[in-house]
Amino acid sequence: MDSEVQPLLRGEWEQDHPVTAQRDWLRMGAMKVRTVFKHYFKETCSVKTLKKRLPITKWLPKYSFHDLQSDFIAGITVGMTVIPQGLAYAKIARLPPQYGLYSAFMGCFLYMFFGTAKDITLGPTAIMSLMTESFADSPVEKDPTYAIILCFMSGIIQLVLGILHLGILVNFISYPVINGFTSAAAITIAVGQIKGILGLKNIRREFIPQIEDMISNIKETNLWDMTLGLCSLVLVHNMKKLRTIDWKDRPDDPPISILQQVCRKILWIIGTGANAVIVVTAASIAASLLAYNVDKLSLTGKLKAGIPSFQPPKFSLQNGNTTITADQIFSDMGIGLIIVPILGIIEAIAIGKAFARRNDYKIQPNQELYAIGLANIASSFFSAYPVTGSFSRTAVNSQSGVRTPASGVFTGALVLLALQVLTPLFYYIPTAALSAVIIAAVIQMIDYKVLRILWKYKKIDLIPLLLTFVSSFLIGIEYGILVGVGISLLILLYPMARPKTKVSVGGIAVVSLNQGLQFPAIEHVQNKIVEAIYADKTPKSVVLDCSNISHIDYSTIQGILELIPDFDRNDVKLVMAGLKLSVLGELQNADIPEVLYSPSVEQAIAMLQEDISNMPNGGHSVVVGGSEENIKVHDRDIINGENVTVCADSDTFSPAILTLTDSTHL
Amino acid sequence: MDSEVQPLLRGEWEQDHPVTAQRDWLRMGAMKVRTVFKHYFKETCSVKTLKKRLPITKWLPKYSFHDLQSDFIAGITVGMTVIPQGLAYAKIARLPPQYGLYSAFMGCFLYMFFGTAKDITLGPTAIMSLMTESFADSPVEKDPTYAIILCFMSGIIQLVLGILHLGILVNFISYPVINGFTSAAAITIAVGQIKGILGLKNIRREFIPQIEDMISNIKETNLWDMTLGLCSLVLVHNMKKLRTIDWKDRPDDPPISILQQVCRKILWIIGTGANAVIVVTAASIAASLLAYNVDKLSLTGKLKAGIPSFQPPKFSLQNGNTTITADQIFSDMGIGLIIVPILGIIEAIAIGKAFARRNDYKIQPNQELYAIGLANIASSFFSAYPVTGSFSRTAVNSQSGVRTPASGVFTGALVLLALQVLTPLFYYIPTAALSAVIIAAVIQMIDYKVLRILWKYKKIDLIPLLLTFVSSFLIGIEYGILVGVGISLLILLYPMARPKTKVSVGGIAVVSLNQGLQFPAIEHVQNKIVEAIYADKTPKSVVLDCSNISHIDYSTIQGILELIPDFDRNDVKLVMAGLKLSVLGELQNADIPEVLYSPSVEQAIAMLQEDISNMPNGGHSVVVGGSEENIKVHDRDIINGENVTVCADSDTFSPAILTLTDSTHL
Repeated sequence: MDSEVQPLLRGEWEQDHPVTAQRDWLRMGAMKVRTVFKHYFKETCSVKTLKKRLPITKWLPKYSFHDLQSDFIAGITVGMTVIPQGLAYAKIARLPPQYGLYSAFMGCFLYMFFGTAKDITLGPTAIMSLMTESFADSPVEKDPTYAIILCFMSGIIQLVLGILHLGILVNFISYPVINGFTSAAAITIAVGQIKGILGLKNIRREFIPQIEDMISNIKETNLWDMTLGLCSLVLVHNMKKLRTIDWKDRPDDPPISILQQVCRKILWIIGTGANAVIVVTAASIAASLLAYNVDKLSLTGKLKAGIPSFQPPKFSLQNGNTTITADQIFSDMGIGLIIVPILGIIEAIAIGKAFARRNDYKIQPNQELYAIGLANIASSFFSAYPVTGSFSRTAVNSQSGVRTPASGVFTGALVLLALQVLTPLFYYIPTAALSAVIIAAVIQMIDYKVLRILWKYKKIDLIPLLLTFVSSFLIGIEYGILVGVGISLLILLYPMARPKTKVSVGGIAVVSLNQGLQFPAIEHVQNKIVEAIYADKTPKSVVLDCSNISHIDYSTIQGILELIPDFDRNDVKLVMAGLKLSVLGELQNADIPEVLYSPSVEQAIAMLQEDISNMPNGGHSVVVGGSEENIKVHDRDIINGENVTVCADSDTFSPAILTLTDSTHL
Repeated sequence: MDSEVQPLLRGEWEQDHPVTAQRDWLRMGAMKVRTVFKHYFKETCSVKTLKKRLPITKWLPKYSFHDLQSDFIAGITVGMTVIPQGLAYAKIARLPPQYGLYSAFMGCFLYMFFGTAKDITLGPTAIMSLMTESFADSPVEKDPTYAIILCFMSGIIQLVLGILHLGILVNFISYPVINGFTSAAAITIAVGQIKGILGLKNIRREFIPQIEDMISNIKETNLWDMTLGLCSLVLVHNMKKLRTIDWKDRPDDPPISILQQVCRKILWIIGTGANAVIVVTAASIAASLLAYNVDKLSLTGKLKAGIPSFQPPKFSLQNGNTTITADQIFSDMGIGLIIVPILGIIEAIAIGKAFARRNDYKIQPNQELYAIGLANIASSFFSAYPVTGSFSRTAVNSQSGVRTPASGVFTGALVLLALQVLTPLFYYIPTAALSAVIIAAVIQMIDYKVLRILWKYKKIDLIPLLLTFVSSFLIGIEYGILVGVGISLLILLYPMARPKTKVSVGGIAVVSLNQGLQFPAIEHVQNKIVEAIYADKTPKSVVLDCSNISHIDYSTIQGILELIPDFDRNDVKLVMAGLKLSVLGELQNADIPEVLYSPSVEQAIAMLQEDISNMPNGGHSVVVGGSEENIKVHDRDIINGENVTVCADSDTFSPAILTLTDSTHL
C-alpha cells in the first residue's frame, strides 16, 4: 500500500521534508540502480558527454594566433616560476630536486585537454610536497617509489570520485578547518627550511625534535649559507611585492608614458620571476666562488640529467635485502590514500573557483576531478609525486594574460628543456637559496587575519580552526586536518544525535521530538522514553509524538524493538502518534505488534485511556487514513485481527482511528 | 544589539529551531568555557561524583555471603571459558598464546571497581585480537611492543572520550555498518584459522593470498591435525548448544525431578565449558600420543611460565640493529589509534546494554568509558593487548547467576593461577584444537539473517551493510568499517549539502531554501543563486528566502562574500529575505554592504523594484523590527547612512522595512 501512496505524497514532501530528499536519493540508490546505470552508460557514450569530458573541444576550434601569443608568454612565465619552485618543493618532499621538475610537466599537458579553468596550472605545490613527505615517507632514503605510488593512487581515487560525482565530499571541509590546516602546514614547512638557511646538518625531522636539534646545533651554523640564505629571503620576499604594486592610476589622470609603461612592465617581470632571479644569482655567486676555490656554500650538487623515462609505477621496493610488498606500502600510507587526493581536489578547485570568479567564467568542479585525476595518473608514469593546482603559479598565469589552458604546453616544454639542458647548472644552486624560495612562498599562506575576523564576528568558528591548527603540531600535520574535519562534522551532526525532546508526564507520558529521528538519535530517544516510563513510581504508557519524523531507518526500528522488553515487563504501551503515512508503512513492514499507532497525540492518549490493548485483536489498532469521506475498511483484515490501513490523499492518516469495536460498526 | 535580543528569542527557538541546539552548544563551547570548567571541576570533586565514578561504592556495602557464592561460581565458570579462549585469541593477534591470558585478568579486576554492568566481563575478544593483528602488526615477529602500546593508547583515548563525554561518537555507527563489519571480521578470522585446522605451514597473511596458498599447499595437509581439528570443531560447536537447550517446560507441567535437574545442570556445564573440555581432551590425547612417541600433531609448544611482570609499556622497539622510535610506531598504527578504542567502546557498551535490558538494570555508558579505558591502561602494564567486553563470556557470566562485578576477581584469580601453574601443560595443546575453538566462536558472529530482514523491510540499509562487508575484504577489515561509517555519514549529511531549493524567476529571481543553510550547502546555494542571476539574457537581482535559516557560520558568510564580484559586475543586488533577527545580527557583524536585508520576500521584491540601491545611504536598508507600536529609529544612525536595527520582541523583524526616505517621515 505504501507504494500507491508515494506518488500522492511525494509532491508535498519535496518542500516539507528535507529528510525525504535523502530518502528519495537512497530509494534511487537501492531500487533504480539498473535504470540509473543504463542511463549513465547511455549518457557517457554520447558525443555531448565526450565534449563535456574534453573541454579542449570547446576552445580549440576558436583558437587564434592572438591566443597563441598570450598563451606562449604566460606559459613561459609560469615555466620560469615552476622550475625554481619545483627544485625547492622536492626538498620539502625529501626527494632529489629533479623530482620537483618531473612533477611539473605532465600535469600541464593533460590539463590542456581536460581542464575547465584557463588560469589553473597543475604541478608540485608546497602542501602536496609536505603531504608526500608525511604519507609517502619511504624507508629507503631519497627513494621515490612511495611518492610515485601515492601520486598514481591519488589520481585513481580522484578519478573515481569524479566518476561517482563524489566531489561533494570537499563540501564537508569548512573554511576554518582549511585555514587552520594551511597555516599549520606553512609553519611546518617554513620551520623545516630554517636548517637549510643556516646550513645545519643531520637535524631530526619531526617538528619538535627538529627545533631542539637546531637550537642545540646552532653553533655549527654555516655563516656563508646563512648570509646568502637571509639575503635571498629578504630580496625574494620584497621583489615579489613588485608584481602587485598598485599604481593608483585615477581615470582622470593623463595616460602614462611608454617609458613608465616599460618600467612598470620590467618591475612586474622582476616581481614575477623573483624566484628565478634569486636562484640564478645565487647559483652564479656560488659558481664564481668555486672558481676561486671558495667551497663554503652547501650546494644542490649533482642531479640526474634528462627527461624521466616513461614507466608504470613500481609497486614494490627493495630495502636492503628485504622486499617491501605493495600492501605493505599501502598500509604504510594508510589514510593518506584518502587525505592526499581530497586535499589535492580542494586546493585545485578552490583556486579554480577563485580565478574563475575573478575573470568571469565558470569551472565544472566534477570535470576538474577528472582533470586532476588523469594528471596525477599520467604524472606518476614519469616518476612524479602528487600534483595539484598551484595558487602562486595560477596567479602568475592569470596576470600574464593567459587565454586558454594551452599555455600549459609551453610551461611543460620549458620544464622538459630545463631537465634536458640545465641540470648540470642546477649543481651550483645553493640549498640556502632554495630554502629562501620556499619560506618566501609559504609565509604568504599563513593567514592570521582570519583570527581577528573570527574573533570579531564568529568566535564559535575559532574552535575548529584552532583545534586543527594545534593538533597539526601535536599529532602531526597529516592528522590535524582529520581532527578538524571530525570536529566540524561533529558540530554539524550533534543536533541530529541529540534532538530536543519535550517530555510531559501526566497519567500518560508524552515524548515529542522537534525534528527527524535518525539513527544517531535513537539511543538518546530510547533514554527519554525509558525516563518517561519510570517518571514516577508507577510505570506509565508513553506516547511518542512523531509528527516531525519523515523517514525511519533500520537502526531506529532496532532501537524501538530493544525497548519492547521494558514495555512488556512493566505492561505499558508505546503509541507512536502523528505518523506520516510513509513512516507508518515502514513501521508496519517491521511489524512490531507491541507498538500502537495513532494519528494524533490526543487520540493516542484517548486510545491508551480506554486501554485498547485488552481488545481481541491483541492491541492492534485499526488505522484508517484520509478524511471521513473516503474511509474503506477491509473486513477480512479485521477478522484476521491485522492492522488495516486505508491509504488516503493526506500526508498523515488523519483524522480517524477506529478500534476493532468501532470499525465493526461500519 | 544582538545580545539584548537573544534572551527574548531563545524561548521560541528552543522548540522551533533544532539548529540552534547546535548554536547554543557552540555558544557555550565558545563563551562559557570558563564557567563550564569551573562547574566541571567543582562537580568532579564532589563525593556524589566520586560515588558515580566508583560504582563499587554502591553495591559493596550491601554485599552478602549469598552474593559471594553466586559471584564465585560465575567467576570460576567464566575463568574456565577465558583460559582456552585467551590462548586461542592470541593466535588471531599473532602473539604467543600467553598474551591472551596476560590480557584476561586486569580487565576483570578493574571492572569490579569502575563497571556499571554486573554481567560484563572484560578481556581478549576475537574482534580486538583481529584489530591488534591489523593495526599493531610489529615488524619484529611475535614481539608484543606494538600490541601493548596500542592497548595503552586505546585506554588513554577511551578515558579521554569519557572525560569529554564524547561517548556520543559511537552513536554515529549504525547497525548495518556494525553488522557488515562483524560478519566480515568473523569470516576473516575463521578463514585465518583453517590453516590451523589443516596444519598447513608458511601461509601468507593477507586474506586473498592466504586462500591461494592454502589451495596450493593443500597437499601438505597434516592428516593428524585435520582429524583432531575437525572433530574438535564439530564437537565444540554442538556442545555449545547444550548450554541453550530450551526444555519447553510448560507451567502446567509437573515439577521436574532432582535427577532431571542434575542432568540438565551437567549438560549446561558441559555446554558452558565446551572450549575447556575440548582443549583439555585434545591436550591429553596429544600428551598420550607423545608418550607413545607419536609426534604428528602440531602443538602450542613451550610458553613463558608465570605472571607477567608489572612494567610501563616500552615506547621503542629494537629491530635488528635499528631502533623503532615512538612516533614511528604511532605513525605505523595511524588511524588504528582511533578505530580500536572506538570499536572497544561499541563492543562493550552494546553488550552491556543488551544484558542490562535482559536483567532489568541500567548501565551508565559514560562510566563504562572510564571502566574500559582504565582497564586497558592497567592491562597494558601487564603486557596485555587491547581488551573489551566479551559477548560469549558475558553471556556465561550472566547465565551462571552472577550478582555483582565482583565475579571478575575470581575470573582474574583463576587466570593468574593458570599462568602460574598450568603453563607447562599448555605445551600439549594442539593448535588445531585452538583453531577449532576460534572458528566455533566466530561463526556465531556471522549474521546472515539481517540480510533477509533488510531486504524485506529496508532495502536501503543494505547499502552501508554490503559496502562495509565488501570493502572489508577488498581494502582490509581495518578500513572496511571506515568506509561504512563514511557512507552512512554521507547518507546522513547529503541533505545538508544539497538542500532543496525552489527558484522562481520573474523580473526578480527568488531562491528559497527548505532548510537551514550550513557550510556544506553553501557551494550548492551559490550555484543556485548564480544560475538565478543568469537565468535569461539580462542579469537580474536575486532574493534569497532565508526564513528557514536559524544560524549562519563563517564558511557561509565567506560563500556570500565570494558572490559579491558577480553582483558588482552585473550591477545586481542580493536581498536576503525573511531573516531571523539573530541571523541578521550575525550577517551585520560580517558587514556585507552589497547585501540587503528584508523581512519578507514580498517586501524584498518591492524594495528591489523601487531600486533602493540608488538611495543616498548606498543601498543600506533601514531595518526596523517588531510591531509598529514599538518602532524606534536612531536618527544619528540614519544620518550616517548606517543600518538601523531596532530590536523587537519577535523572531523575524516583521513587519516594517523603511527606506531612508520613509524613515525620515517618522
